[in-house]
Amino acid sequence: MSKLKLYNYFRSSASYRVRIALHWKGLEFEYLPVHLVKNGGEQRSDEYRKLNPMAHVPTLVHGDYALPESMAILLYLERLYPQKPLFPKDEKAYGRAIQLCEIVNSGIQPYQNLKVTNDFEKAMSWSKDETHAWVQKWVVPGLQNLETVLEKSAGLHAVGDDVTAADAFIIPQLFSARRFKIDTTQFPVLTRIEKNALQLEAFKKAHPEAQTDYEK
Amino acid sequence: MSKLKLYNYFRSSASYRVRIALHWKGLEFEYLPVHLVKNGGEQRSDEYRKLNPMAHVPTLVHGDYALPESMAILLYLERLYPQKPLFPKDEKAYGRAIQLCEIVNSGIQPYQNLKVTNDFEKAMSWSKDETHAWVQKWVVPGLQNLETVLEKSAGLHAVGDDVTAADAFIIPQLFSARRFKIDTTQFPVLTRIEKNALQLEAFKKAHPEAQTDYEK
Repeated sequence: MSKLKLYNYFRSSASYRVRIALHWKGLEFEYLPVHLVKNGGEQRSDEYRKLNPMAHVPTLVHGDYALPESMAILLYLERLYPQKPLFPKDEKAYGRAIQLCEIVNSGIQPYQNLKVTNDFEKAMSWSKDETHAWVQKWVVPGLQNLETVLEKSAGLHAVGDDVTAADAFIIPQLFSARRFKIDTTQFPVLTRIEKNALQLEAFKKAHPEAQTDYEK
Repeated sequence: MSKLKLYNYFRSSASYRVRIALHWKGLEFEYLPVHLVKNGGEQRSDEYRKLNPMAHVPTLVHGDYALPESMAILLYLERLYPQKPLFPKDEKAYGRAIQLCEIVNSGIQPYQNLKVTNDFEKAMSWSKDETHAWVQKWVVPGLQNLETVLEKSAGLHAVGDDVTAADAFIIPQLFSARRFKIDTTQFPVLTRIEKNALQLEAFKKAHPEAQTDYEK
């Protein structure tokens, strides 16, 4: 097997999702930091854009194949390395896990990412507090909706008692939410499954603070 | 098999994606329109929120199982009804197809949906033109990035010569882009694969104008 490489950034929630998946499956990979702020954003370099025209992280590189988008990466890894599955065998649990991933991926994260918050601060001359307020307006109801789905689906983890891709999406989203000063204690199921996940080695290894490019 | 039901709205691009998948696979389904504007938005009713707390369309109902999120629905349908596949067998093509879906799903659509554009018009007292300008600022580069990926991946369709989930995401996105006055002729690959897809019966049946709730 060609060695896996992960272009990513310690703080990016989408990067954190993929790190969870790689560590969960016990896959070795080369960690390649892409600093989203320094040098005008290293993700905007011509070199990086050849791997990922969207100029965001993460991108998985496997031999000569470059694959961006965390959901695509998780499903690709599952196909190639089915050990320690992240997608349930049962069809209904499978659908539910992907639904939870997408609430985070398309329903919450797009309204808090750096590209958007930077745009507001520049284009509308918003202060950090004004930007946080706008982000909170989208993220808090998103988390509330996650909580509502989880009330029925969760056991020890987001979908029943096994770790799934949904946990790999939800745990990083909670980390991001706190950066925007959102009080996550209002979500008892989310915080319960977070506590359970964070006890697992793969989630510890994937945590932003455990990465070589971590900055306070 | 329990009959499939689809809660959806003719104009919603995410609904259009799922209609393409259902028609492509030749699956019968009950079409249940949810009007996103009338009655303060029928998707916000308590009854609908029981199926989908995010209060958006589409939601697939299969027996007593309700599944929102177009990506979850397409992958669920593929598991249950593998005929006329929408996800390639080859791992690299599989990853690429999902990458393309997610560029649309999490990279473009969140910046043009009705929830967001309504918010801007109210909260910032923007005119329709100002809203369109903001939407264009996100959607045009997104389409350009799609085009760049497609330059390498596309054949007759988005990934090689077979229809995949990527086509089910891209064709509705082009329909939406024109509503925001985006000139799509600047994207030769996108418009070429669109032309090919729109010749297929499944795409014709799924088109917004072919739905019972269509309005000019």
